[in-house]
Amino acid sequence: MESNQLAMKEKIHMLTDGNVTTPKGYTAGGLHCGIRKRKLDLGWVYSDVPAQAAGVYTTNIFQAAPLKVTQESIAKEQKLQAIICNSGIANACTGDQGLQDAYEMRRHFSEALGIEEHYAAVASTGLIGELLPMEKINAGISQIHDQENNGASRFESAILTTDTKEKGIAIQFEIDGKLVSIGGAAKGSGMIHPNMATMLSFVTTDANVSDQALSQALKDITNKSFNMITVDGDTSTNDMVLVMANGKADNDELNPSHPEWNMFVEGLNIVCEILAKEIARDGEGASKLVEVQVTGAVNDKAAQAISKSVISSNLVKTAVHGADANWGRIITAIGYSGQQLDPDKVNIALGSIPVVKNGIPVSFSEEDAKNYLLEDTVVIYAELGDGDGKATAWGCDLSYEYVRINASYRT
Amino acid sequence: MESNQLAMKEKIHMLTDGNVTTPKGYTAGGLHCGIRKRKLDLGWVYSDVPAQAAGVYTTNIFQAAPLKVTQESIAKEQKLQAIICNSGIANACTGDQGLQDAYEMRRHFSEALGIEEHYAAVASTGLIGELLPMEKINAGISQIHDQENNGASRFESAILTTDTKEKGIAIQFEIDGKLVSIGGAAKGSGMIHPNMATMLSFVTTDANVSDQALSQALKDITNKSFNMITVDGDTSTNDMVLVMANGKADNDELNPSHPEWNMFVEGLNIVCEILAKEIARDGEGASKLVEVQVTGAVNDKAAQAISKSVISSNLVKTAVHGADANWGRIITAIGYSGQQLDPDKVNIALGSIPVVKNGIPVSFSEEDAKNYLLEDTVVIYAELGDGDGKATAWGCDLSYEYVRINASYRT
Repeated sequence: MESNQLAMKEKIHMLTDGNVTTPKGYTAGGLHCGIRKRKLDLGWVYSDVPAQAAGVYTTNIFQAAPLKVTQESIAKEQKLQAIICNSGIANACTGDQGLQDAYEMRRHFSEALGIEEHYAAVASTGLIGELLPMEKINAGISQIHDQENNGASRFESAILTTDTKEKGIAIQFEIDGKLVSIGGAAKGSGMIHPNMATMLSFVTTDANVSDQALSQALKDITNKSFNMITVDGDTSTNDMVLVMANGKADNDELNPSHPEWNMFVEGLNIVCEILAKEIARDGEGASKLVEVQVTGAVNDKAAQAISKSVISSNLVKTAVHGADANWGRIITAIGYSGQQLDPDKVNIALGSIPVVKNGIPVSFSEEDAKNYLLEDTVVIYAELGDGDGKATAWGCDLSYEYVRINASYRT
Repeated sequence: MESNQLAMKEKIHMLTDGNVTTPKGYTAGGLHCGIRKRKLDLGWVYSDVPAQAAGVYTTNIFQAAPLKVTQESIAKEQKLQAIICNSGIANACTGDQGLQDAYEMRRHFSEALGIEEHYAAVASTGLIGELLPMEKINAGISQIHDQENNGASRFESAILTTDTKEKGIAIQFEIDGKLVSIGGAAKGSGMIHPNMATMLSFVTTDANVSDQALSQALKDITNKSFNMITVDGDTSTNDMVLVMANGKADNDELNPSHPEWNMFVEGLNIVCEILAKEIARDGEGASKLVEVQVTGAVNDKAAQAISKSVISSNLVKTAVHGADANWGRIITAIGYSGQQLDPDKVNIALGSIPVVKNGIPVSFSEEDAKNYLLEDTVVIYAELGDGDGKATAWGCDLSYEYVRINASYRT
């Protein structure tokens, strides 16, 4: 890591119980409207004032209806004041009716909160191809006003599908001597792959940020965080990352010429990276987080492709699941990444245990390697010796449980 | 299917007990030399006379030593007379010693058969990163002369790794009024993905074929057969398809200007496609063959990418395993293929059961769909309505068994 990046990280304070309502001016909540059997299934985040907003969306050509509506909302003024998200049904592949439903959800939600319609974003996650039960959703929305601030934890819970845990985080640091907070919530679990997956992430901040700068920063950071995780190689129809910046921290407007711009970007990056890693660790059936760090590639793009190739390999994932130091599968996945590299310069290590030097295996203690692979977090290092390119990708192991969940998800 | 292709197919006779020794002038065998515990682990095919030869090889940058040696052999005269293949150890990522071992294996094998060294091809499959036990292999080779013709079934068995069955086939048809045979054997199972996988295929024919034409035909056909199968998305270091044509059928030399050239190509295509499908059906942990037929794509290349995207999806594969008609995962995989298509024109069917019309689900009997997905072979049709492009890809379901096998393959 660069030294100035390290220095910035030291100034960032992590709040273990932080969430999307840690930044000033945000409230959040969740309730059960009846799409799911018992689980909370409708959540929302609200800012006291309209906030600068930016979004990134799935690259899947079958983009779900709520993504279209949310993009319309943001396009109008680059602002959002509230986000509503249901779980259980994705409102994807639902044709005109689905689009009408997403509009209706946005209209009712904005009316319930008394905000401009285009300040509301809608998101959905769950089964593809089913229509939203609009009566239930509308009934749910009509209760929001009474429960408006029933808590970020309920929001985090309401957006989950097969996830096993809520994912929330917040950090704080100073800009212009003012306390700035960034909070985030996410859901992931299945259909997760580089370039947006069934993952939703909502980031809030009270920083005052220019719209263009916020949008560009989110795009850049997404490429290094959410687009570097994979659970199963499938990219969903509903993925979206939204960020809202309501300016309540009262700092001078942030943009690349502000002296502390990099500090803000680093903060946003940390929140996105933590959420991305939590999504990977909680992948369907996963028992651990796997991190692949590639260095020495011809350039960063090659390093990204190589790290994604390794993290996506079913054979690497099953080997990690079985705590089997099968470096042959790692080198194979590096080799079919389609990237330029010199096979005779490749070094691979599992944590601190070197297993390949200059493309050839070195002897290592199988027992040490097994013990390392049994840990909660496993890091695979690949140093290619071809240049300065580097990248990190995150994923999880592939287990019986993954097959069990997915052989019976719908029925 | 085109009508002239159908007419050709009718003239092709399938031999259910055919194999690589069905064509005139070939013998084959296999023995146990001690790389594996009990299983046969060394096999060979031999032609009475040098044969025109062609090969296609893995695209993995870590190409195993035997592939380099075999390419050298063929490069010299475009001819081969014999192939030797061991299972258990892949001789990949073994550096200079591995290359020396592959040369030594070729030298001993050609000496044992009394043929020119560059008429011999070597192949290996199994664990990556271990050196071949050359004493055992040399001892095995010295026994070949006595067991030279102990049978194609022993050859088919000797080249297997985690495969559950031998894969052999032969067909016959007439060219210039002469009986021509094409036989083939293959191994597959894991690390199988478009662009060559841990798959080895050896095809023999007694047809008289020009070297250039044979080479081009093999390349074209591989793109439609072996490169269209996937088991787990991993492309191995050792994959290779070799074809030998020894001319013993006594037909006029075949090349694209021969009136029956298309007949030969169709025959070669059938053998390769059958072997490819057998590899897919016998994928690690697979309980069935899954076929994805894409039509109406903007072009064939787009159709190939889309069919591969669907067949490679872990979520589609687990849904098929669970006999769950989860068409949402199919449409999602079509959508993230990166290909140009109109989402509103997509039709999907499971066998004869339409599940999506114009991008939107249609109602269907869940019971009928479940029963269909429980069959031995499942065909997923996707008609895109965008053009004339078409392609077919093959794969298998993803099961608990796949995870079990691969969480403990090496140890």
